[in-house]
Amino acid sequence: MSMIAGGSAGPTIGEIGEFALIDAILQSVPADPDRTRTVVGPGDDAAVLAARGEVVLATDAMVEGVHFRRDWSEPGDIGRKVVAVNVADLEAMGATPVGLMLSLSAPADLPLSWVTAFRDGVLAECETAGIRLIGGDTTASTVLTIVGSTFGDMEGRTPLTRSGATVGQKVAVKGRLGWAAAGLRALSRGFRSPRVVVEAQRCPEVPYGAGREAVAAGATSLIDVSDGLVADLGHVANASGVSIELTTANLDIAEPLQAVASATGGDPVQLVLTGGEDHALVGTFETVPAGWVELGVVTEAGEAGSQVLVDGEVPDWPSGHDHFAR
Amino acid sequence: MSMIAGGSAGPTIGEIGEFALIDAILQSVPADPDRTRTVVGPGDDAAVLAARGEVVLATDAMVEGVHFRRDWSEPGDIGRKVVAVNVADLEAMGATPVGLMLSLSAPADLPLSWVTAFRDGVLAECETAGIRLIGGDTTASTVLTIVGSTFGDMEGRTPLTRSGATVGQKVAVKGRLGWAAAGLRALSRGFRSPRVVVEAQRCPEVPYGAGREAVAAGATSLIDVSDGLVADLGHVANASGVSIELTTANLDIAEPLQAVASATGGDPVQLVLTGGEDHALVGTFETVPAGWVELGVVTEAGEAGSQVLVDGEVPDWPSGHDHFAR
Repeated sequence: MSMIAGGSAGPTIGEIGEFALIDAILQSVPADPDRTRTVVGPGDDAAVLAARGEVVLATDAMVEGVHFRRDWSEPGDIGRKVVAVNVADLEAMGATPVGLMLSLSAPADLPLSWVTAFRDGVLAECETAGIRLIGGDTTASTVLTIVGSTFGDMEGRTPLTRSGATVGQKVAVKGRLGWAAAGLRALSRGFRSPRVVVEAQRCPEVPYGAGREAVAAGATSLIDVSDGLVADLGHVANASGVSIELTTANLDIAEPLQAVASATGGDPVQLVLTGGEDHALVGTFETVPAGWVELGVVTEAGEAGSQVLVDGEVPDWPSGHDHFAR
Repeated sequence: MSMIAGGSAGPTIGEIGEFALIDAILQSVPADPDRTRTVVGPGDDAAVLAARGEVVLATDAMVEGVHFRRDWSEPGDIGRKVVAVNVADLEAMGATPVGLMLSLSAPADLPLSWVTAFRDGVLAECETAGIRLIGGDTTASTVLTIVGSTFGDMEGRTPLTRSGATVGQKVAVKGRLGWAAAGLRALSRGFRSPRVVVEAQRCPEVPYGAGREAVAAGATSLIDVSDGLVADLGHVANASGVSIELTTANLDIAEPLQAVASATGGDPVQLVLTGGEDHALVGTFETVPAGWVELGVVTEAGEAGSQVLVDGEVPDWPSGHDHFAR
C-alpha cells in the first residue's frame, strides 16, 4: 500500500522546504568507512573522491508512470531500484562501484514520509551494491523523477565495452532474464503474484560483482540487459561487427515465468528473450566461467549484417523496449 | 519563438524512436582532441575517463515550468543553461571541468528539431566551458526534465569547500549578481527587455576558470551563487562557523538592473543580494585577486550563531529560493 493513499502521512516536502528535505535525506547517510575515498562528502557544491584507476560514469533516469508506479511499488522498492539500475551500468564495464548521486524532482505535496522510506531503500541497496550516496539535487516537478548518476573505478582493469566480441566465442549470462517483465505482466493484469516476479519488477536483483568476475574470466564484451536480451545483444553484435546465435534449449525457464506465461497467454521463451529491467550481465568469453549460463555463440555477420538469431532464425517479434513508442 | 509553436517542426521523438534520437544527439559530438582523457566515449553502458587527481562530481536538474519555459527560451538557450549550471558546481570546488552526462526525459510529441537545437546549445556551451559530453540517458516523461551530472578533476589542487572561511578574511565575487533574477522579473511581467537581463535568465554567463583562479589566489572557501548571494553565503557562514558582513556600498548595480527595479517597483540592491541563477563565484580570501569584487568581510559568529549581515543588519526579506515553496 502506498503512503500517498493514507490520510496521516505527516508533513509534505513542500511544507518542510528544500533544505529540511535535504537534511532528512542526508541524516542517515553513514560515514565513509574507507576514508581514503571520500575527500568531500554530501553537502557541498560537489563531492570529491579519490580515483585509483580510470573513472567510469553513467546515468539512468526513473520517471513515475514510465519506470514505476507508486501504487505498485513501496517507496523503499523505488529507492532500491534506482540504485540497482544505475550500478548495473558500472558492473557492465567491469568497474568497482564507488559513488552515487541522486537527483530528485518531486511534487511539493509528496509526503516527507515517502522520501524517508525511499531514502532507506536507497541506502540499503547502496550497502548491498557496495556503493555510497555522495551527493545529489532536489527540485520541484509535477512528475516524480529520480535520476541516478554513478561513479565507478576500473582500479587498473581494462573496461569491458560492447565491441570486443569475436567469432567463435561463447555468449553467457549471469542473473535473471524475463523476471521483471513477467512481474510487469502480472501487475498490469491486476495480479500481485507470483510474488517473486512481482518483486523482481519492483526492484531487480542485479548480480553485483559479476562485472569484475567477467573481467577476471577474460570476457571480451559485456552488457547489462536493460531493454531485453535480443535487443541488448543486438548492440553487442553491431558494435563488434559480428552476429550472435542463441539456442533456446539452453534457457532455463523458471517456474514462475511459466506460470505467468500460461496465465496470460504468452510464450515464456519470448518473455526471457525480450523482457528487460532485470539487469542480468551478458558477456562473450572463450571459456564460460563458473556460475554463468551459456546461451549461444558469436558467429560471422552475414550478408544482412550483424544479427541476433534465435535457433537459427531472425525473431519476428519486437526485440525490446522503446521508451518513446506508443 | 519556440519550435513547438510551429506547424511544420518535422518528426517527433516518439515517431523516430529512442535509438534514432540518441544517434541524432551523438552525431554532432566532436571527437576528443585530448585522447588521454577519453577511454570510452558515448554509446556504451558507461563512459570511461582517465583521472589525473581527485575526482569531483555534481548533479543539477532543470524541470520545465520550474527552471525554464519553452515559450521564454529557445531550445539552444536551454541546452546552454544545463551545461552552465552544472559546470558552475565544478568551478565552485576549483576543479577542471572534464565530462558531462545528460539525462533527457521528454514527452513523445517533442519535435526532433527541438532536440537537435537543444543539442547544438549543449555542445556550444560545452566548448565554452571546456567540458565534453560523454554520455547520457533518454526516456519518456510528461514533463520535459533535463538532469546534468558532471565530472571534474582537481589535477592535484585542494578542493575549495564551504567550510574554510576564517575571521578577518575578505569576501569577493567574480561574475554577475541579480541579472537572471531581473530577467525573470521582466519576463514574468510580459517584457522581453532589457535584452541583457532576459538573456541572463535564459542562460547564465558563468565565469569559467574562476574556480582555478580562486585556488591560485589562496581562497579558503568558494561557492557558486545559485539561490541568492545572502542565502549561499549563509551556507558558507554555517559550514565555517563564522558570520559574514556585506557592505552594499561595494555593490555595483548595473544599469539594466536599475531599469528593471524602477519599472517593476523593486529595490535593485535586494535584486543583487537575493537573485539566484547567475552562478557567480563567491570566495573568501586574505587578499582579493584582480578581477574579483570585494563585497564584505568574515567576522566572528555572534550569540545568534552564524549570520549574514547586510550593512550591519539581518535582512528582513526572504534570503533565497526554496524550490518547494508555493
